[in-house]
Amino acid sequence: MSQHRHPGAPGRAGAVPALPELPEATVARLPEYLRALHAIAETGHETVSSEGLANAAGVNSAKLRKDLSHLGSYGTRGVGYDVALLIEQIESVLGLTQCRSVALVGVGNLGHALAGYDGFASRGFRIAALLDADPSRVGEEINGLVVRHVDELARVAVEESISIGVIATPAPAAQAVADQLVAVGVTSILNFAPCVLSVPEGVDVRKVDLAIELQILSFHEHRKASLTALPGGLAATDTQEAIGT
Amino acid sequence: MSQHRHPGAPGRAGAVPALPELPEATVARLPEYLRALHAIAETGHETVSSEGLANAAGVNSAKLRKDLSHLGSYGTRGVGYDVALLIEQIESVLGLTQCRSVALVGVGNLGHALAGYDGFASRGFRIAALLDADPSRVGEEINGLVVRHVDELARVAVEESISIGVIATPAPAAQAVADQLVAVGVTSILNFAPCVLSVPEGVDVRKVDLAIELQILSFHEHRKASLTALPGGLAATDTQEAIGT
Repeated sequence: MSQHRHPGAPGRAGAVPALPELPEATVARLPEYLRALHAIAETGHETVSSEGLANAAGVNSAKLRKDLSHLGSYGTRGVGYDVALLIEQIESVLGLTQCRSVALVGVGNLGHALAGYDGFASRGFRIAALLDADPSRVGEEINGLVVRHVDELARVAVEESISIGVIATPAPAAQAVADQLVAVGVTSILNFAPCVLSVPEGVDVRKVDLAIELQILSFHEHRKASLTALPGGLAATDTQEAIGT
Repeated sequence: MSQHRHPGAPGRAGAVPALPELPEATVARLPEYLRALHAIAETGHETVSSEGLANAAGVNSAKLRKDLSHLGSYGTRGVGYDVALLIEQIESVLGLTQCRSVALVGVGNLGHALAGYDGFASRGFRIAALLDADPSRVGEEINGLVVRHVDELARVAVEESISIGVIATPAPAAQAVADQLVAVGVTSILNFAPCVLSVPEGVDVRKVDLAIELQILSFHEHRKASLTALPGGLAATDTQEAIGT
């Protein structure tokens, strides 16, 4: 967990500066800090204390300070963090200084919602292509984009410089779509299908399974009920965990 | 991380058996094991090795064995785990032996998709009510349910024995909806709005922020690009993390 820096090889002109190695949990919290920082910036504040930022992001402040120390950001005693500078640092680490193009495969109910979700564009992502295997869906227009057949993926990936693939197909179709995405060079996949994908090394997969979130809440409901039934039982835990942490 | 048991108070007839205390990360992985076990059961296998189950669930087998030991499940050397028994144990711990009723507040794009998502019912959840603050949405029928005004929440919560609230409103409306849910006695909330909710102790909140998932993938894309630019750079990490882990 110590701070690592991997400076570019000496003398290499134009090298992309290497990123610090970050714990996966820290990476998952950086977008939370970023969202909170943007909200703070909108209120006109130029600095923020670690406690203020931690509250706004819903984490504890010791964790926040440790996370930010990985980026080389330590704030100033009695002043806090410079909001604009910290936004810049986090956006740089997350690679959000460039807009990334997303291909969405599967335009059923969930795919439709994702295609119309305006939270992506405001945070640096452009849904650049919609694809589906069902010929009856091909040609349909959603949010200004025409659905194309998934067999056109290779061409679309090049034309639109796709860097992230989103899979919103039923589970039985997901692995084949993942294979197609990997075959055309996509190395980051967000999977909404309720299944585990096999991908080669170097390909990153994040998974969102909506029913799993409900099952985790079910555990807490069940636990609270069992504690209520026991006089002097343990206090129920209060959790507010972001995905990925 | 040691195994805790909280047996019911002696002599209390009809007491709900208390649940073991489980690390939050273990709770988050149990639904993954359950999904994998159901898939294995469908293929007709009655036992599964820890390696086989770990692969199917996308985790490493040491972590799986430790997680299951919290439930008191150790498997049988040379045989593995009894699939049916383990399904029963996990469903019991997660409180999935009863169907839970869900109220969904906010029927915009994402709410529509969630209302139509058939992955809920198959895993023990019933969308029992759809609510929205927009009068023009009230009365609309989605998947056989009529959208009601959010002001009716108190009545709906009682009528439908709501145990979980799902918030799919825009961010500025989410806190007020959370307050309303808490006021009518809902103690588990799944929040899709990109904001942090304040809730009293004893209320569990899980959060799904779709753009955050993309930002985490963006980090990995960015990192892979920086490594490619550096000869002899570090190998890119291969991550496949489920939400909540």
